[in-house]
Amino acid sequence: MNLQRKHQSETMKIYDLIIIGGGPAGVSAGIYAARQKLDTLLITKNFGGQMAKKAVNIENYPGMGEISGMELIQKFEKHLKKNDIKIKMESVSKVKKTGNTFSVTTRDREEQKSRAVIIASGSDPRPLEIPGEKKYIGKGVSYCVTCDGPIFTDKTVAVIGGGNSAFEAAYSLSRYARKIYIMEYSAQVKADLENQQRAKETGKIELVTNVLLKEIRGGDFVESVTYEDNTTKEVSVLKLDGIFVEIGSQPATSVVKDLVDFNERDEIVADPRTCQTKTQGLFAAGDVSDTTFKQIVIAAGTGATAALSVSNYLKLST
Amino acid sequence: MNLQRKHQSETMKIYDLIIIGGGPAGVSAGIYAARQKLDTLLITKNFGGQMAKKAVNIENYPGMGEISGMELIQKFEKHLKKNDIKIKMESVSKVKKTGNTFSVTTRDREEQKSRAVIIASGSDPRPLEIPGEKKYIGKGVSYCVTCDGPIFTDKTVAVIGGGNSAFEAAYSLSRYARKIYIMEYSAQVKADLENQQRAKETGKIELVTNVLLKEIRGGDFVESVTYEDNTTKEVSVLKLDGIFVEIGSQPATSVVKDLVDFNERDEIVADPRTCQTKTQGLFAAGDVSDTTFKQIVIAAGTGATAALSVSNYLKLST
Repeated sequence: MNLQRKHQSETMKIYDLIIIGGGPAGVSAGIYAARQKLDTLLITKNFGGQMAKKAVNIENYPGMGEISGMELIQKFEKHLKKNDIKIKMESVSKVKKTGNTFSVTTRDREEQKSRAVIIASGSDPRPLEIPGEKKYIGKGVSYCVTCDGPIFTDKTVAVIGGGNSAFEAAYSLSRYARKIYIMEYSAQVKADLENQQRAKETGKIELVTNVLLKEIRGGDFVESVTYEDNTTKEVSVLKLDGIFVEIGSQPATSVVKDLVDFNERDEIVADPRTCQTKTQGLFAAGDVSDTTFKQIVIAAGTGATAALSVSNYLKLST
Repeated sequence: MNLQRKHQSETMKIYDLIIIGGGPAGVSAGIYAARQKLDTLLITKNFGGQMAKKAVNIENYPGMGEISGMELIQKFEKHLKKNDIKIKMESVSKVKKTGNTFSVTTRDREEQKSRAVIIASGSDPRPLEIPGEKKYIGKGVSYCVTCDGPIFTDKTVAVIGGGNSAFEAAYSLSRYARKIYIMEYSAQVKADLENQQRAKETGKIELVTNVLLKEIRGGDFVESVTYEDNTTKEVSVLKLDGIFVEIGSQPATSVVKDLVDFNERDEIVADPRTCQTKTQGLFAAGDVSDTTFKQIVIAAGTGATAALSVSNYLKLST
């Protein structure tokens, strides 16, 4: 009888809020939700989001000066855990909404219920998936010009990709680097003519098209990239100090894909003033959402906005 | 001849960007602008914005844990000054736009020119302007329930004001405080009926209308407020532990008033995705703009967004 009652009360537990994600947006949402006295469960595989992949120091989270990604993650995690919030270290496999209640299923097949959900599951840069790439992350391989560009002052670098983001990255790098190669698999690049023209005008950017990257090599740091001409199959080696991968990103949206709209970058469309998605009670924050710029402090700001919006939403829906 | 040339080149100097304000939004914009290699001048009377007025610790800037306002300001200022940015400690008296160039005049009658401006001049809570108010800031007098509410757990407090923000503040406080008085000058309150109803349902909130606040008194901390009935002129003393002033705020917008649109709260209307105002090249960030929630991390996030938008804007306008 006691056991049954216990089981019953467990299955009936409905959180005010479930937050999915432990990066800057999820942690910020968690801090704000706890301070709003929302009964909150945060579910994440790990803390830090993309910060965890940054082997170079972070210099643009206001107030922190220069700090390693790992140290900043620890500060976020510690700050979160000072608050009254339940944390479950697991992957989410599915989010459903029935009536006004969300159910969030994790990979361990547990189901949790809540009245609101913040999806802050982030986004991953799409990797090249070639030998040497993983080895040299933070040692010449980067996925973020805004973060790591200044390191390559007076160096030779390559930007991989042929879209606007690759050309914008190359243009940004032209403020620092001595020489920038843009390397693209197709024979034609997809970037706007304007972006192409601007890159050309720097006098520092050289376009290498129709090539397949084969391998990144070096000693302690990146020293070269090996590539093959798609037509002639000729293999060449290009000496360089850094490689910026700009072949797109993958917002981690699969668990809510039936509940939200997407923009052209596969990001979740959310009202920028409230983080509300098209499903009432489901909010999106950080890099998984369609914010214009992907930065730690911007993600943290949207996490706060989402949590305060949830607080308003729950007041109105009671 | 040399002197004349020097003078000429000085008067012709055009910055990429002038940032007005040294609070979280202005400092964050400054850090991002400098990292974007924008030739930037930041003009502010002082650093910290509203953080400077917080005598209690800040617990909701993600990653910082619990920190005093003054310490957080110092961290922001130090971080900013690590970057290549010019800083002028002065008040701005006027912003004009002629062609594509902005001119920003300071109180010392100097004029600076730039191709873009970020206004991040913040907002001040409107004070009561009664004896004892200034003395007890941080010692029972507060202008921010989100920040300071938890301090008053099981205490008796008053919220001054009769609008939605006062009722929302009182409702938020009902999670913490034992008893909340809402004190309003008019005979009728202006808050939505829904807000009034919700406040009533807490069973903790008592409405006192038609009163004029005269004085805040106490020892080391607030102990009472003295008020007069507007009809009978009877003077009463109410014992309490805290006073939240919610009689509106004053966004510091006067220097750009001819260049922007305002919302109903006298905040500058800005595109939430870019911070662009109605004047091309003029961006607004932080509490001076029409962000939904006024929080340090949200202001810092919009500062970053504004600076990155300026970078895009300047590329497109060259």
